[in-house]
Amino acid sequence: MKILVTNDDGIFASGLWTLVRELKSIAQVVVVAPDREQSATGTAVTLRQPLRVQRVAPMVTDIEAFSVEGTPCDSVILALGKLMKNSADLVISGINQGPNLGDDILISGTIGAALQGYLRGLPALAISVAGAEKAYLDNAAKLATLLAKRVKANTLSADIFLNINLPGLPLAEIKGLKITQPAHKTHIDTVEERHDGKREYYWLVRHKLGTDAAEATDIWALERGNISITALHNTLFQKPLSGITESFCEELFQELKKA
Amino acid sequence: MKILVTNDDGIFASGLWTLVRELKSIAQVVVVAPDREQSATGTAVTLRQPLRVQRVAPMVTDIEAFSVEGTPCDSVILALGKLMKNSADLVISGINQGPNLGDDILISGTIGAALQGYLRGLPALAISVAGAEKAYLDNAAKLATLLAKRVKANTLSADIFLNINLPGLPLAEIKGLKITQPAHKTHIDTVEERHDGKREYYWLVRHKLGTDAAEATDIWALERGNISITALHNTLFQKPLSGITESFCEELFQELKKA
Amino acid sequence: MKILVTNDDGIFASGLWTLVRELKSIAQVVVVAPDREQSATGTAVTLRQPLRVQRVAPMVTDIEAFSVEGTPCDSVILALGKLMKNSADLVISGINQGPNLGDDILISGTIGAALQGYLRGLPALAISVAGAEKAYLDNAAKLATLLAKRVKANTLSADIFLNINLPGLPLAEIKGLKITQPAHKTHIDTVEERHDGKREYYWLVRHKLGTDAAEATDIWALERGNISITALHNTLFQKPLSGITESFCEELFQELKKA
Amino acid sequence: MKILVTNDDGIFASGLWTLVRELKSIAQVVVVAPDREQSATGTAVTLRQPLRVQRVAPMVTDIEAFSVEGTPCDSVILALGKLMKNSADLVISGINQGPNLGDDILISGTIGAALQGYLRGLPALAISVAGAEKAYLDNAAKLATLLAKRVKANTLSADIFLNINLPGLPLAEIKGLKITQPAHKTHIDTVEERHDGKREYYWLVRHKLGTDAAEATDIWALERGNISITALHNTLFQKPLSGITESFCEELFQELKKA
Repeated sequence: MKILVTNDDGIFASGLWTLVRELKSIAQVVVVAPDREQSATGTAVTLRQPLRVQRVAPMVTDIEAFSVEGTPCDSVILALGKLMKNSADLVISGINQGPNLGDDILISGTIGAALQGYLRGLPALAISVAGAEKAYLDNAAKLATLLAKRVKANTLSADIFLNINLPGLPLAEIKGLKITQPAHKTHIDTVEERHDGKREYYWLVRHKLGTDAAEATDIWALERGNISITALHNTLFQKPLSGITESFCEELFQELKKA
Repeated sequence: MKILVTNDDGIFASGLWTLVRELKSIAQVVVVAPDREQSATGTAVTLRQPLRVQRVAPMVTDIEAFSVEGTPCDSVILALGKLMKNSADLVISGINQGPNLGDDILISGTIGAALQGYLRGLPALAISVAGAEKAYLDNAAKLATLLAKRVKANTLSADIFLNINLPGLPLAEIKGLKITQPAHKTHIDTVEERHDGKREYYWLVRHKLGTDAAEATDIWALERGNISITALHNTLFQKPLSGITESFCEELFQELKKA
Repeated sequence: MKILVTNDDGIFASGLWTLVRELKSIAQVVVVAPDREQSATGTAVTLRQPLRVQRVAPMVTDIEAFSVEGTPCDSVILALGKLMKNSADLVISGINQGPNLGDDILISGTIGAALQGYLRGLPALAISVAGAEKAYLDNAAKLATLLAKRVKANTLSADIFLNINLPGLPLAEIKGLKITQPAHKTHIDTVEERHDGKREYYWLVRHKLGTDAAEATDIWALERGNISITALHNTLFQKPLSGITESFCEELFQELKKA
Repeated sequence: MKILVTNDDGIFASGLWTLVRELKSIAQVVVVAPDREQSATGTAVTLRQPLRVQRVAPMVTDIEAFSVEGTPCDSVILALGKLMKNSADLVISGINQGPNLGDDILISGTIGAALQGYLRGLPALAISVAGAEKAYLDNAAKLATLLAKRVKANTLSADIFLNINLPGLPLAEIKGLKITQPAHKTHIDTVEERHDGKREYYWLVRHKLGTDAAEATDIWALERGNISITALHNTLFQKPLSGITESFCEELFQELKKA
């Protein structure tokens, strides 16, 4: 099994390499990721400029790694269409430092990257954690690996595009794993006026709106100490849930606790 | 009524000003648009850099126009959060030269811009035409104006996010106006290897896949000479159709033919 | 006579069009300039990315104008090598808002642009004013026109590369016109630490050092109410002064006062 | 002694690390360099955008290394003004893959970076080789180290800004070490028209002009199998030669052959 790993925090982010280290035990992993942080680049694809790629020294031994002067979407398109020669079986984007919930999924580069895998017919996971502590990244890496094993064993549909968020909690305190919908109208970007000494400029600052998240949404689930799995293939494309059922979640959660 | 007009072809594109000229007859129009072409920037928002704005000379008299060194999404966020002081009643993005159909809607800056209006609670239209001829742009401008009139008269729900595509046809040859779903897995970006004399690089080229579009999809409708209206508030956010019914479409189409 | 006009403040800057309006009386003027402000881009040339060019509506009637998604140097290279088909007789870069003196000349896009004209064998002027008032821009435009007339009449060597700075003073208060050398070690960029809410970043701020400028330098001349002309062909390339003598300056200054 | 090493090929270029490996034997080395290739960015400084810096894993052990999302000039300004806390004694930019000769020195990021060191009162070297073979990079690294030793021993003036170019030759075939002037009007950028499928664009291609280089110029020296040292403090700023004499060159060359 060959897994493409990418992210939007840039190829040297620790979340990405925590994931790679864990996945390496069950599959061949190739890393193709942006050379710079690309937060909030969403679904952007570079069609008007060249894309430069460099092989870089991996932070986990025996992993092929390529950095791309482009967006997360570009990285996946390049990886699947050229660098991996159409041999990938699964795309995982993350582990993102900070959650991707509600409207944020629309502008998230993490999710944009996974989308490009899904549109090419591959199972695609975006995975994020609320918090940067090593133990939380480990939880996420283990959960991604459990899901990858199911894809490998064909016990999970290949036609999935999942957005997974873990709370910033020790594994023992996580309540469970919920199937969710994206919460709606949850974030806003406000505009600050600043001055650079010569001229005025603006700076966008993203805020979470304080509104109560509706039941069964991703924000609602995370706020209550759960892992959230949103089936974006269903939300964005009205595809049936592909086996992402409540009993599946229960089983996966039990397994994660033992991992 | 105050309408924000933006696009992803850049503030000097003729499609934008054709739209402004028509809308001006029924509303106060403000233009806030990228200073450069921003095709395929999708939902990207600039959170890591400053945004520079300049007042520019309008190509239609008595219109306030601002160019933004940023994406279409940035332009709408700046317009609604600062330049228009929260006074906009409607956001229209376009008229894009070239259609935005199927998966393309996910990476389209035209649609990304409209999305930002919708997320702020405003009715939002993205409008595109297959072809750059003046007569086709005029058709689109008239259709947008008919819809804006209904928003003004409160005969159309304010909670809409519509993606509208017109075929490259004279008005007399357009068959009708269809409510559609986005076609699925319709485009692919292939990777070309090139050389700049010193180093290799890659260039992404976007292709339409040749697969038959399913019935009632946007591509299917356009290929049959119809105008396509996709209710993205429904597709992306599972919101009910907000009055975008078949009889509404029939009525609108009759009106357009007389406009 | 055909004059290429460019700048680093961007194609809509008023300094550029003040210059064009005046030059138009004695020559055919073509404007090729960056679409965005490009301050401090110095000698940068874009060799790794494509350059996009758009014909734009001029702010002075009957002038061909092209905006370039690139640096001032790119604009001149494109203009001379393609858009003007090797027909230019003179390159003028400016009128820059703010002076370009001392070390600043090395990072100035205004001067970088003129350099590209000079390297292609054309007489090249960079012109800047300390202050943005209309009357001061008019002084600069008139002085540039007087020099252009001399180039046209072949009374000034074609092998010149001049950096011209005017003080922010009414013409009546300007003392004279001095031949100068660039002042040395005059500016410093300090580094400020800032935070964008998520991460730290740095911002460079350019300062003028408070040291006394040596006699006969550009800063020295301007501080004493003079117009400064620095023969950069001499400074940078050890070329003889090409007729930029004291008596030439005196004559030019008298003419300017009558213009 | 503390040496700042930077370049314009990007922080992972092998030329940079060949230099660091050699310098490490005589000094504490800190690397601050662009995260991406920045060829032809010349003297550009980033004054309108934030600068992001990341500590990266060095390719030579026990070296502090920082990558900068900016130009070579930005890297030096950040290093000297913040990251190294004003403790650097020498700035070396390179080893550039490919020579920097004639007019090329004006648009070279390698030289732009060294300039920023010189303007802050530090001795500054830019070093390039014609050819990418490991043995040639080693020659350059050894020569840079010999010069650094002299700076350390105060036997070389601190007020130097040298542009050094080595031919692509084994050490045994190099003829000598010449003091040179930059050759004049040596390069040209031509403009190619291309098409991206949707729109036309231009691409600049840099060419060496075929003209014979004048005697005692950098191109002339290299073409005859010599190492070229150009005293840019003299060329650009009319500073006396600071001890870069013919006997100095002879002595240095003899030492290099034994290194």
